[in-house]
Amino acid sequence: MSPHPLDLELPKHVDAALAGYLADRRALGGRMEENFTGAVDALADFVLGGGKRIRPTFAWWGWRAAGGDPDGELAAPVLTAVSSLELIQACALIHDDLMDASETRRGMPTVHVRFARRHLAEGWLGEPERFGLAASVLIGDVALAWADDMLFAAGLPNDALQRLSLPWRDMRTEMLAGQYLDVLTQARGDASPDAALRIDRLKTAAYTVERPLHMGAAIGDASPELVAGLRAFGTDIGVAFQLRDDLLGVFGDPAVTGKPAGDDLREGKRTLLVALGMEFGADVLHDALGRPDLDVAEVDEVRARLVEVGAVAAVEDRIARLTESALAALADAPVADPAGDRLAELAISATKRTY
Amino acid sequence: MSPHPLDLELPKHVDAALAGYLADRRALGGRMEENFTGAVDALADFVLGGGKRIRPTFAWWGWRAAGGDPDGELAAPVLTAVSSLELIQACALIHDDLMDASETRRGMPTVHVRFARRHLAEGWLGEPERFGLAASVLIGDVALAWADDMLFAAGLPNDALQRLSLPWRDMRTEMLAGQYLDVLTQARGDASPDAALRIDRLKTAAYTVERPLHMGAAIGDASPELVAGLRAFGTDIGVAFQLRDDLLGVFGDPAVTGKPAGDDLREGKRTLLVALGMEFGADVLHDALGRPDLDVAEVDEVRARLVEVGAVAAVEDRIARLTESALAALADAPVADPAGDRLAELAISATKRTY
Repeated sequence: MSPHPLDLELPKHVDAALAGYLADRRALGGRMEENFTGAVDALADFVLGGGKRIRPTFAWWGWRAAGGDPDGELAAPVLTAVSSLELIQACALIHDDLMDASETRRGMPTVHVRFARRHLAEGWLGEPERFGLAASVLIGDVALAWADDMLFAAGLPNDALQRLSLPWRDMRTEMLAGQYLDVLTQARGDASPDAALRIDRLKTAAYTVERPLHMGAAIGDASPELVAGLRAFGTDIGVAFQLRDDLLGVFGDPAVTGKPAGDDLREGKRTLLVALGMEFGADVLHDALGRPDLDVAEVDEVRARLVEVGAVAAVEDRIARLTESALAALADAPVADPAGDRLAELAISATKRTY
Repeated sequence: MSPHPLDLELPKHVDAALAGYLADRRALGGRMEENFTGAVDALADFVLGGGKRIRPTFAWWGWRAAGGDPDGELAAPVLTAVSSLELIQACALIHDDLMDASETRRGMPTVHVRFARRHLAEGWLGEPERFGLAASVLIGDVALAWADDMLFAAGLPNDALQRLSLPWRDMRTEMLAGQYLDVLTQARGDASPDAALRIDRLKTAAYTVERPLHMGAAIGDASPELVAGLRAFGTDIGVAFQLRDDLLGVFGDPAVTGKPAGDDLREGKRTLLVALGMEFGADVLHDALGRPDLDVAEVDEVRARLVEVGAVAAVEDRIARLTESALAALADAPVADPAGDRLAELAISATKRTY
């Protein structure tokens, strides 16, 4: 049997749902205040400008795992509901870029930079940076509020909304708690493997994989066994996914990752890889981490030390064990076809070595 | 008949609902990540540290106007639902204080200042201001997300939640669109009365009075006539309320307003009063507006000119006309007792002269 078109081209359908929703909100917002459309356009450019739609994908497959029928009348509301996750992610990234003072994302100026530049170009009053700050705070807030609106107006039955409300509630708080812990950990200079793993569990495992799966399963009225199985799978694969990302941030091919080689080192990211490297005696990290001018030879030296001291092997080993336990949880769960195969594929593709 | 205890001491009951909800979320958040409780505590201190509970009060009376019974089984869920408005307001104020770089609110350090000071006191890594920025962005986001959670979990019947969803959706966007327009208007140096009134309509009329009334009426399944009447009342009284606030910001007694005399002038607020003052030729405003070092004699001079050119009289006249049209809309609406009298009292007390 050939795959269902919705399963096959999910990101395209998520994009269409988001584009439609944002166009409706732009029209509504323009009637409130015409100048507000400038803010909506910046949000739409951001949301529709890229992203792998990973959270909607896991949420969709959580619903399919619970027997959700892509030809049924619920398919369209579920598609809208899972697409709303991208608006939460837009808030997270727009605010994160502001907090990190990042200049670009996906090759485009970040939202605060876009508005600061507009301020400068127009010769407006006050400081461009302060205007960029205000606009990006407010546009992130709009995204967060609209995520709730989009979910609530998706057309799901009331009982599904009720079941959804707990994972939805916890997911948003886990994301924000993870961001807060990340900021606090950096400020404290806490380089422990434990701190790195706690951030990974909140920001990536819970927010990116486990809760989206949980949401989808809740919409589909999944049994407690299925919910537990999907959550166990999601937690482990989510951490493994982050650990692979950490390795790619140091060892990844710029042609594949789209970021300069070793960029995570220059940014000073406190990952499990870095924490284990320090614990295992790769002292070169202390000097290299967070130095924006780190050159290719220095990146190579850090890479070599991370391999020598065994940090890379320890992270690879952990990825392998997490992937194994995730796939075992998935195999034990009463997952409806074809979600089991597809989730296993997603797990493997998200955690496999690509450097 | 003596007033019902809930009607009589509504702010106290709103405080209790907020305290209970935040304590529950603190416990839940602490189980996710113990360090997150520091963020929740800052939010709770902010929310419980003051405020007149004006939005919950209007929402409550919107429900009572639709015949809501304070002795009925819906009273407790409605109280929780209307209290959630204070969490939206917490987001608005925490983010606004950051955008304006305000140091204090209600005599306490603002959230970004509180976290910057903590960073400094602990001797943490990086810049204290950047840490304060990140913490206040995230804590505002938490407040916005929790407002939705608190509303959804208030225990309202599904049909009431469905009816609520439109005013709830529009209210949050009107608040953010109003903030955005405010920031944009200041940057553009647009000193027109039209711009000032458009901000007042979004930020105060819609967000503070009209939509809370609309929400309460929607919970109570009000007739279209009642909804229309309450919204007309709310729009006019909301603008009048803001215009009174603008006058108090320049002419108010510090002992009553809690702010130094003429503080709005030092902050450079672009109010209708200021816009009309400029239009009518009070040129002293051009020099005075936004000057932090403005002394008492200079404030007195601006005040005298605002009176002389007729700006104060024009604003007073507008307040009087708006209050009259608001009370007429209220009198024509099919409002249940005792909401009519109480809303008329609220209208008069919010717009009367106190300087």
